[in-house]
Amino acid sequence: MLMKDAIFIKPGHVAIEDVAKPEVQAPDDVILHIVRTCVCGSDLWDYRGLDKVPEHSQNGGHEAIGVVEAVGSAITTVTPGDFVIAPFTHGCGHCAACRAGFDANCLSYRDNFSEGAQAEYMRYQHGEWALVKIPGQPSDYSEDMLKSLLSLADVMATGYHAARMATVGTGDTVVVVGDGAVGLCGVIAAQMRGAKRIIAMSRHEDRQKLAVEFGATDIVPERGDDGVAKVMALTNGVGADAVLECVGTEQAVDTALKVGRPGARVGRVGIPHNSAMDLKPVFSRNITVTGGIASVTTYDKEFLLKAVLDGTIHPGKVFTKSFKLDEIEAAYQAMDKREAIKSLVVTD
Amino acid sequence: MLMKDAIFIKPGHVAIEDVAKPEVQAPDDVILHIVRTCVCGSDLWDYRGLDKVPEHSQNGGHEAIGVVEAVGSAITTVTPGDFVIAPFTHGCGHCAACRAGFDANCLSYRDNFSEGAQAEYMRYQHGEWALVKIPGQPSDYSEDMLKSLLSLADVMATGYHAARMATVGTGDTVVVVGDGAVGLCGVIAAQMRGAKRIIAMSRHEDRQKLAVEFGATDIVPERGDDGVAKVMALTNGVGADAVLECVGTEQAVDTALKVGRPGARVGRVGIPHNSAMDLKPVFSRNITVTGGIASVTTYDKEFLLKAVLDGTIHPGKVFTKSFKLDEIEAAYQAMDKREAIKSLVVTD
Repeated sequence: MLMKDAIFIKPGHVAIEDVAKPEVQAPDDVILHIVRTCVCGSDLWDYRGLDKVPEHSQNGGHEAIGVVEAVGSAITTVTPGDFVIAPFTHGCGHCAACRAGFDANCLSYRDNFSEGAQAEYMRYQHGEWALVKIPGQPSDYSEDMLKSLLSLADVMATGYHAARMATVGTGDTVVVVGDGAVGLCGVIAAQMRGAKRIIAMSRHEDRQKLAVEFGATDIVPERGDDGVAKVMALTNGVGADAVLECVGTEQAVDTALKVGRPGARVGRVGIPHNSAMDLKPVFSRNITVTGGIASVTTYDKEFLLKAVLDGTIHPGKVFTKSFKLDEIEAAYQAMDKREAIKSLVVTD
Repeated sequence: MLMKDAIFIKPGHVAIEDVAKPEVQAPDDVILHIVRTCVCGSDLWDYRGLDKVPEHSQNGGHEAIGVVEAVGSAITTVTPGDFVIAPFTHGCGHCAACRAGFDANCLSYRDNFSEGAQAEYMRYQHGEWALVKIPGQPSDYSEDMLKSLLSLADVMATGYHAARMATVGTGDTVVVVGDGAVGLCGVIAAQMRGAKRIIAMSRHEDRQKLAVEFGATDIVPERGDDGVAKVMALTNGVGADAVLECVGTEQAVDTALKVGRPGARVGRVGIPHNSAMDLKPVFSRNITVTGGIASVTTYDKEFLLKAVLDGTIHPGKVFTKSFKLDEIEAAYQAMDKREAIKSLVVTD
């Protein structure tokens, strides 16, 4: 059996090709029929040729919601026909890391990152605990709700991770560095955790508007030292209680470390692309540096799925353009050119 | 009026000389008659010539308990005759940093570190909020109790800071890296905060014994990768929930970052002497890196003084040798040669 799959042809070019439909290979495999997938900011590192990947290889999309097509013999939690969120990491749920709420760092499995989600079907390894059941069927939900459910495969949980690791709490002043989909979800997360003031560092009008809709109380369009000065002016020279770093570049990290008050917590979820850091200024100001890969399944099961289904949060609004799977190249281009905050891909 | 004062003559040599007795110079100055002072591990960096300081300069002792001799016109909280702890930082108590519990990073004062404590008298700047009153007079207390009270000027509070920043909580497994006075106080702090298992990395027999007396459940004498392997073996390959880094060297920091489980919190209070750090492995394992200069006044006023006076904790046991002020050189040598864990200096 063949299916459509996004293939990385070479930097600047992805295309849909027919490949073999995946099959159950291990007892804890789950084959998913993808309903919605999308393009991640991290996919652009490959597309732009900044991270080297082999030419003509399966592309690394890792965000999806779908319907269970087949299950391995060890799977007891889902059955064919179930509608599920496919988190981009696949924890076991019972090791010390998973129990501590760090299922991205699961100690049982090493091969626990999704790939091949930009396709009609995907093989989801170690699916027993990691998959998150959604009540009903895709047809029961509006397109807007499907978008919000899809955001629970990565970006909403990742934004939440920044806020959790920075221990954002009631009454806090929070700075969010980065206005991509994750940064915008960080604004939602800061509000969920009771932040009183949320300063979004954003210089694109469409993202500024969405940040305000999500709960941002102040917008700082300046970057670098000008941005730091603006945040300091907004906080009476004190700085923020907590900072969410949702970019990963050297400049973003530098800004994040400077806009906090003494003792501030900086939650990082931007994949670090320049990782050496001088910790002396951090130490001298008692700054906490924390963060990493999000605990998607944990957050989804504990509260994020409920918040989406209740209509408390609407993270799906980060998907500002929709494409068919056959239009995958256009989906990448829209993000590459910043014409879309995040590109949705409809596969069914 | 003259008084005795410890003078840094040159690397490897300190001596007592007569200098002018300090006087009130600012409205919020307090002149203290020192009762007990001591030598800090950080003083050894100067003594060993590793940190460069001018020859024939006043030495930087910064830990003391004493009796108030005179106060400036703005001081309302203490009066001559009061017995006090002199924390090594002097916060204002009301700025955003002090209110958040980071009085070492007080936003009101920049000149808020003690110096000149190894003397008969010291000028304590910004004393209004920072000084901590002790009930009664020095003569009311045993020598053992005076030692524990002196530890509240720095080391006990600093050890506590590591545990607070690493959010040590009930049931945690904690690794303490470093068996100096601060590391040993870190063991006390971990126990105060409810740690179930406390693994002390120590290879000196006297310090191992004290660590166990303070609550350590396991001793790891190995260092570097062997030490990491030992901790991993003790924790079923998982690692600790929290790590207290109480040394500051590159090896100690490296060890601290490796002995935690995914999502572990590493509280650093060792003054960093090699500060560049590769954050990629930290990010990939969701390790929290935190810490800095301790909030001495806050901790003393909130609970540490009470815990010492109640006899709940006995941090004064880190002072294993006592010297007269005239014997200051011997006090330094005892620590330099590791014959004392920490040298007490009796000034009255």
